[in-house]
Amino acid sequence: MQTELTPVSLKITQQRINAYAEITGDPNPIHLDAAFAAKTEMRGIIAHGTLSMNLILRAVAETFGPDACDGAEMDIRFVKPVRVDDTVTASGKHDPAETGRYNVQVTNQAGEPVIVGWIRPTRASR
Amino acid sequence: MQTELTPVSLKITQQRINAYAEITGDPNPIHLDAAFAAKTEMRGIIAHGTLSMNLILRAVAETFGPDACDGAEMDIRFVKPVRVDDTVTASGKHDPAETGRYNVQVTNQAGEPVIVGWIRPTRASR
Repeated sequence: MQTELTPVSLKITQQRINAYAEITGDPNPIHLDAAFAAKTEMRGIIAHGTLSMNLILRAVAETFGPDACDGAEMDIRFVKPVRVDDTVTASGKHDPAETGRYNVQVTNQAGEPVIVGWIRPTRASR
Repeated sequence: MQTELTPVSLKITQQRINAYAEITGDPNPIHLDAAFAAKTEMRGIIAHGTLSMNLILRAVAETFGPDACDGAEMDIRFVKPVRVDDTVTASGKHDPAETGRYNVQVTNQAGEPVIVGWIRPTRASR
């Protein structure tokens, strides 16, 4: 049993956010339009939640192998927005109270959690 | 209270998968290398889970507004792989037993669920 997931990091530039919007077909101006985003409760551009969430799946794949996420269950919460030029890191630790389940978080460069939750990879329990 | 989320669809081409891998910095060959993927238990290329999951967040944003996903909690399971050239659609219905929570699913063009779970948008409960 792995006690920790291999951490994975990514810098979230505006260029990356723009490209992510194009690929996912996501026209939401809160990710793209600084003037619009400034007037919302977010008070500025935020990155797509799944862009950071993807790092959790990458950490699982790097720890357990390429198909460890298929069939995986996860429960997460977006606790803080990711801002332009934040560097986010996904990490995780096995939960001894829940065999095969990992408590996961994505943190920004200040160490603040942006996503928290858990994932149960398919591989981990085999 | 909205009873249904606005459905959102996306065609998952290999070109889109390749671009997604580049943007997310995800080098996992199960998404990119047909020969490698064919030898795994997946028996062929599968799309990134968060590429389809993003449609759930888009459906929420289109229903409740651009920042409705910030602070959102979700619990999902990847029940079936998404294959190259699948068209996937996210939809959701309010759960009368859990105020503010929507049962969500992403289905492929055959109507088969690929992701199932729930999301609690921040906006819905305001």
